[in-house]
Amino acid sequence: MTSPTTAEPAAQHAVTRTDTPDAPHVVVVPDSFKGSLGATDVAAALRAGVLAACPGARVTSLAMADGGEGTLDALLTTWSTPVRHVETVDAVGRPRTARCAVSPDGRTGVVELAEASGLPAVGDVPLQPLHAGTRGTGELAAAVLDAGVEEVLVCLGGSASTDGGAGVLAGLGARLLDADGDPVPDGGEGLAQVASLDLSGLHPRARAVRWRLAVDVTNPLVGELGSAAVFAPQKGAGPGDVAFLDAALARWADLLERETGVRVHELPGAGAAGGVPAALVALLGAELEPGASLVAEAVGLPAALEDAALVITGEGSFDSQSVRGKVADGVARLAAASAARPPVVVVAGQVLLPAEQARAAGIAAAFSIAPGPIGLDDLMSRTAARLSEVAASVTSLTLAR
Amino acid sequence: MTSPTTAEPAAQHAVTRTDTPDAPHVVVVPDSFKGSLGATDVAAALRAGVLAACPGARVTSLAMADGGEGTLDALLTTWSTPVRHVETVDAVGRPRTARCAVSPDGRTGVVELAEASGLPAVGDVPLQPLHAGTRGTGELAAAVLDAGVEEVLVCLGGSASTDGGAGVLAGLGARLLDADGDPVPDGGEGLAQVASLDLSGLHPRARAVRWRLAVDVTNPLVGELGSAAVFAPQKGAGPGDVAFLDAALARWADLLERETGVRVHELPGAGAAGGVPAALVALLGAELEPGASLVAEAVGLPAALEDAALVITGEGSFDSQSVRGKVADGVARLAAASAARPPVVVVAGQVLLPAEQARAAGIAAAFSIAPGPIGLDDLMSRTAARLSEVAASVTSLTLAR
Repeated sequence: MTSPTTAEPAAQHAVTRTDTPDAPHVVVVPDSFKGSLGATDVAAALRAGVLAACPGARVTSLAMADGGEGTLDALLTTWSTPVRHVETVDAVGRPRTARCAVSPDGRTGVVELAEASGLPAVGDVPLQPLHAGTRGTGELAAAVLDAGVEEVLVCLGGSASTDGGAGVLAGLGARLLDADGDPVPDGGEGLAQVASLDLSGLHPRARAVRWRLAVDVTNPLVGELGSAAVFAPQKGAGPGDVAFLDAALARWADLLERETGVRVHELPGAGAAGGVPAALVALLGAELEPGASLVAEAVGLPAALEDAALVITGEGSFDSQSVRGKVADGVARLAAASAARPPVVVVAGQVLLPAEQARAAGIAAAFSIAPGPIGLDDLMSRTAARLSEVAASVTSLTLAR
Repeated sequence: MTSPTTAEPAAQHAVTRTDTPDAPHVVVVPDSFKGSLGATDVAAALRAGVLAACPGARVTSLAMADGGEGTLDALLTTWSTPVRHVETVDAVGRPRTARCAVSPDGRTGVVELAEASGLPAVGDVPLQPLHAGTRGTGELAAAVLDAGVEEVLVCLGGSASTDGGAGVLAGLGARLLDADGDPVPDGGEGLAQVASLDLSGLHPRARAVRWRLAVDVTNPLVGELGSAAVFAPQKGAGPGDVAFLDAALARWADLLERETGVRVHELPGAGAAGGVPAALVALLGAELEPGASLVAEAVGLPAALEDAALVITGEGSFDSQSVRGKVADGVARLAAASAARPPVVVVAGQVLLPAEQARAAGIAAAFSIAPGPIGLDDLMSRTAARLSEVAASVTSLTLAR
């Protein structure tokens, strides 16, 4: 079913160290600038600016992400491990080659739901709110289990389906059966018919590893704020579909509770990605974590911060969301918890958060890359150059005394 | 002829000190943001930002200027001395109330040429390139001499005339006579007729004080790069007028050389403000100085820098001109020459100078107040708020460890 292959890494070496032991250590750890520059390129531009202002600096470049789109790319870059390609299916069951990664030490596998089961990949056909599923993500996860990992990070977000994670289980080898013992169809539709679970074919390592889910919403599985009510409409569900899916998810959660004793109906975050956490929490003991913290740990940020004199992060828009579980927040929390307690500076396309709120969130300073009055397109075309300029100013001000 | 009066100062107390002796000392010393905010208001906005980020900081606010427009306002604010009003004449001889200032210790008087003899004040009548003069500026200078000052700072720039400083001399009581011993008319026109100087009525203190002229151009008095050729056209001179004025200035310089032995024809900077330095250098021993340095000294910047931990300056546009004699350059030079060598940060409406060139000029960092893609009008309407925000970020990054 799955056929992992490896390809050359697009990554560059993430860490540069000079021979000077007391050179100031600067950590650049940006998110992507969405629509403009990926996190790897942002990090490279920031690094160039740091070195221009302080040629003797030791710079650690870590591409960051918030657990959503771009997370796999950020980890591939930072880990410098080869991308793995897996032949699987998309959200509507068509063949699809999806990517995943395993950390250099082989302990951690990363699966991005949007890779196999994402909405953009099925943008060429009409939305199928009842039929779309997450089987491909389960097959991706099976591929990293085959590689022998001890933990699997699953980045949620960007899903096309509302299947309560049933597809992931199916991709891992479980069978969902109706009252007659026949397999139910994929998608939310199948949840309305499922009567029992056959776990005999489940991947033998599925219950031996730690599952960590990057989740940045707090929506429960069912109800007014549940997965169907809040997220299904953007996946094509009409009002009748929403009601059908909400009832199907409730039925699915009832079955999971009967099977495992774990109740996920009201679990905050279980409503993410069409309810994927429901199945993984109940059956596999998955943990839900804020995406930025999960990724920060995965890229090795805590260790990099140990002797850091300055931390520069960045994102396209620095706003009130940024300090609620996004990259800047994750970086600031880890910096505050580190022994060195280095100042954290945000360099952003636009700075909307008041400086006072940034300081309260542990961010010393936030600067826009805008050089003055400028249009969006013009600024986006100059993102890399301006990132270097602002990083140079920040470095010069902080380190070059 | 002159009738000095005093008025309430518009200034606020420039220096705030807390009772904490080891509070970090921050010097804010901006230029005006032309068309948007005066230097005093810019300084207030920066100061608010500094204190928001570091409530314990000791902040010295100095309004700066480059010796051109706004210099008198900057000095009045920083000195907290009352403005003096003098009834005099404008560039075309009409009555005009002009302002000047005397430093708190009474030693230094400041005269801004544009106050009495400026081009904007005669914008309601046709330009008079041959007749416009600087008599009003001489009368203003006489007023500060009456006050007993020991030195007179004359800020050039914005002149409407090309009179080689003859009007200033006349305002100070000298008489310019033609071959028949009759007074010549004011303006460049009179220079073509002047045959002798009668200094018997010259203000008794005119030769007892130090004259310091803020000059930011290097043009000589006469010739292809001279005052008439380069600057007279913008004062309404046609090609024939330019030739006439150039010859008149040469004749005037010849006369000054005969009278004093000082040759000013080719003196760099003598071409400023229609040639005003010519007369003041030859007859009164005036010194030409870069405006920003002159003003920086006058506002007490060198003393303020002694224990400064951070210096924030600013201007509307930070570009290649900024590091050639403008405010940022003057501030950076003094900071580099100080014992504390505090980092200098520029906060600007737009940052056009590459960071590398800024650092080479002794400026640690330059940040725009633009929060992201934004139009000019929108940004200008938010100048004060954005200045505070960026100053807070700079302060937090530099001091709040």
